[in-house]
Formats: sequence, structure tokens, C-alpha cells
Amino acid sequence: MERIGFIGLGIMGAPMAQNLIKAGYYLHVYDIDHDRTIAVASSGCSNASSAYHVARTSDIIITMVPDTPELEQVIWGENGIIDAVRPDSLFIDMSTIASSTAIRMHDALVAKKVQVLDAPVSGGQTGAEQATLSIMVGGSKQAFDRALPVLKVMGKNIVHIGGPGAGQMAKTCNQIIVALTIQGVAEALTLAKKAGIDAAKVREALLGGFAQSRILDVHGQRMLDNNYQPGFKTHLQRKDLNIALQTGNELAVPLPGSSQVAALLDALIARGDAELDHSALAKLMGEMSGID
Amino acid sequence: MERIGFIGLGIMGAPMAQNLIKAGYYLHVYDIDHDRTIAVASSGCSNASSAYHVARTSDIIITMVPDTPELEQVIWGENGIIDAVRPDSLFIDMSTIASSTAIRMHDALVAKKVQVLDAPVSGGQTGAEQATLSIMVGGSKQAFDRALPVLKVMGKNIVHIGGPGAGQMAKTCNQIIVALTIQGVAEALTLAKKAGIDAAKVREALLGGFAQSRILDVHGQRMLDNNYQPGFKTHLQRKDLNIALQTGNELAVPLPGSSQVAALLDALIARGDAELDHSALAKLMGEMSGID
Repeated sequence: MERIGFIGLGIMGAPMAQNLIKAGYYLHVYDIDHDRTIAVASSGCSNASSAYHVARTSDIIITMVPDTPELEQVIWGENGIIDAVRPDSLFIDMSTIASSTAIRMHDALVAKKVQVLDAPVSGGQTGAEQATLSIMVGGSKQAFDRALPVLKVMGKNIVHIGGPGAGQMAKTCNQIIVALTIQGVAEALTLAKKAGIDAAKVREALLGGFAQSRILDVHGQRMLDNNYQPGFKTHLQRKDLNIALQTGNELAVPLPGSSQVAALLDALIARGDAELDHSALAKLMGEMSGID
Repeated sequence: MERIGFIGLGIMGAPMAQNLIKAGYYLHVYDIDHDRTIAVASSGCSNASSAYHVARTSDIIITMVPDTPELEQVIWGENGIIDAVRPDSLFIDMSTIASSTAIRMHDALVAKKVQVLDAPVSGGQTGAEQATLSIMVGGSKQAFDRALPVLKVMGKNIVHIGGPGAGQMAKTCNQIIVALTIQGVAEALTLAKKAGIDAAKVREALLGGFAQSRILDVHGQRMLDNNYQPGFKTHLQRKDLNIALQTGNELAVPLPGSSQVAALLDALIARGDAELDHSALAKLMGEMSGID
């Protein structure tokens, strides 16, 4: 069994690492927050004092960090992995970053004779805990085949999309759809609430037709409950739309809907709601409509 | 068994009427297009020469017409039903119109001692043919209970949302969500295509995560195939968003996403694509991105 190093033990990374431990893998874990590292290590694995040490001792290195700067720190920062990775090791970044950044990272690590995959996920905290994440993978077939048994411990719908960066591109597509679907559900349920009809019955009826979506099901319920505890935070959804807009800009693809939802998320963040679940777009719509 | 009159035998109405005939109901049918009337009547029911005659002979009158003007014509126009409806009959409008218009119509017919329901549907031509429509109903409990056996012949997920107009309000919500979800899927798959990755694999992967929706499944496939045969026509989706914007205006609910998609549908219609399926928003996004 390959030794796994896991870097980034937040709301997603911690349960993903724990599922690997439960599956019998020997893990070396690290988070910039020492308490998080200790918390996961206490469930039965070694804790490392830096990303560097993780890389020195691992056959497979998995990263799950919030954004590009954190990932660049893990790779090129002080005690980063770039000078510690073992030849023939496999690096799997499961964070959500821009496809073009993933390709840069891929090229730098391949130069160190490392196999590299971008393998971002969808499914949120629940998906991470229940090992039902959807995983979108970019990189070589050889690296994908090597990673598959490990990925299967963390997710269910695992698709090899294409070469380097293709996994991140698919995740960008995912975040565009999620953003617009949430905005659609938010506008619809706000209208229903203001009209004074039973918005719960509207959700129930619409789940049986063409408006059906996992967002209407899960996030629609949150909107009915006015419960915006994350889940997936507004500022992270905003970050992911920034990746989408950056990618659209690089490829000359106008993304009018994504641009608009990004602006609405900015308004939500300006109101102090950055830490709420992204379904709080309904809170913003409600406030814009004079609903409490 | 109650005698049913069915007015409006288009892409939706014809299969709905045929399902009622198959279920053993005695139907009297009428469409402003005589050929359509004859086509449905030939499958085993009577054809009427006007809406007036349908109303004279029916216990239950069902209407399924494209828009408000056609419905007003059926009710108040020459040979309309308003002077023909029998007391204690049940009028069920299954067209998609504004909630406020449905309430006006309700009040006018209730004054004639008629029971009235607004019962718009979701599920498209396939749903109509396979009797799997989702039906959103507004009106009294008594009228709903009377209509239920008939509605069950045409649909599966039948929800009594609330009083008069509530069914149309739910349908308006439905069309908002459908519009924004299609736009989200269109932006995402256009980005994937322009990036040169396998958009079919992106769809497959995303169906397993939070971006899952019936739109991604059905309309996403149409976008991959560049097959924009309706389905549900672009100009009807635009009409339904007009209802949404009108309703938002009446209730002081800003609908930024709906407004934007309405503008994009206008652009699509200006290009001559009014008769294509509403998933042709992806055709527009492709053209805006320089993709054939």
C-alpha cells in the first residue's frame, strides 16, 4: 500500500483524510493550523511539521487547500514540497484553482519526475464525510490509474476528463452551473415568498419537473429554512467564479450570467455575509425585495 | 364519468387530450386550427366548431393555449365560453400565464358559478406524451379534489400549491429556475468546448455532483449534440420570462438573473432562432465565443 501525505485539513480535507485512514492507508498529515493537524493525527496517523516533511515520506501527496496562493505556498513556499518530492511519487491536487495554474504546477512537478493530477471535487462537506464526492480528474491515464484506488476511498463519481488542467476546467464549469442555479432558485423562492404562497410546496412541485436540481433540493430547503450555515461559503463561491471569469477571459468566452452572480456575491460579501453558505444569495434577494 | 371539453391541441394539448381519451373519458375537443381538431378527434372523440360549443356540452373544460391573448379569446372572444359555461362546471386552465391574469379569470368565471383552477404544467412534450407532467395547481380544495382524477391521467407530480393564481405563481418560479439553469449549463459547456476538453465527460462528471439537474441531463445533451429542435421554443421561454418580470414588477421583487436571460433570449430571437429549443442559449454563447 502506498504511503499517503495529506496537506490541508479543513472542512473538506479533514474528513477526506479520515476516510483514507479508515480504509487502512498509512497517512502523514499536515495543515498550517497545528490544531487541525493534531486533531486528524489523533484519529490514527502521523503528523508532519511541514509540507516538506510530508513530501519526503510519501509516495502519494494529496493537497486540499482553499486557493491558489495557499497551494503555491505548499509547493514553492518555505518548507514547500518542490525540493522534497521523491521521483516517481504522485502529486494529486484536489483544491479548486484555475486550469491554467494547474497546468503550470503540473509542468513544474513533472520536471521533478513526479506524476501529477488535478482532481478537484464537488459534493461539499457531506460528500467529503460520506465519501460520495464527485471527482473530476485531469492528467495522464497512467497517473489516473495509479490514483484511482485512493480516489475511490473519497468519492463515487470519478471521471478522467482529459489531460493536465482538464479536471480544473470541469470544476470551473461545475461552479458556473452551481452559481447560476442557486441564483435561479433564489429568485424563484423569493418571488414565491413575496407573493404569499407556500414556497415549500413550490419547491416540492418543482422538484418533479424540469426545474429539478440538487441545488433546488438541498439549497432550496436552506432558503426555506433561512438557514445559511455553511456548507460552502459565499467567499469561496466568489473565488471560484473569479476563476471562471479569469478562464473565460483567457479563452475569450463571455460569461454574462457568471459575471452577474459574481457581482451579487460581492454585494452579499459587502453586507458582511462572506462566511454564510452560498445559498445566502436568497438572503440578498429577500433583502432587495423588502422581505425579512 | 364527467364529460371533458379540451381547448388547445398543440404540441402539449394534443397528447394530453389523447391520454384522456385513452383513459376512457368522453372528450369534446377544439382548436382554432381545424386540422389539429380533426387530427385529435380522429383518435376517438367529438370535435366542436368553437370554444362556445365545447363549454355548452362539458362538465369540465380544460384549456391549453400558448399565451394570455389566446386564453382571453377563448373566454371572452367571439364564440367564447363566458356565455356558454354551465353552472357547477369546472374550468381548468393548464396554459402558462401570469398569476394576476389567472386571478382575474378566476373571478370572472366564479361569478358564473363555475369552479376554477389554474393548473400549469412542467415536463414538456415528452411529459405530455408519457403522462408524467408535473402539475402546479391553484384554486379551492373542493375544485382540486374534483379535478384530481382527471389531472392524474395527464401527470405524475400534482401539487395543490394554494388558492387562485398559486399554480401560475409556482409555474413562474419554475420558468425562472429553468431559464437560469439553462444559461448556467450553456456558459459551462461553451467554456469546456472552447477549452478543447471533452464536454461530454464534463456533463457526465457534473451529473454526479452539486451541478446535477434535469436541465444538465436533457438540455446539456442537446447542447453537446448541437441539436436545438424543440422541445420548448425559445420565444415561449421568452414569453414566460416576460410573465416573471411582470410579476416581479407587480410585487417589487428584482429579478436580475431572469432579466439578463430575457435579454439573451431576445438576442437569440433577433438572430432568427425563435423557433429553436430554449437550450439554444448555448448556440448564442457559442457564437459569442467564436465557436461554430
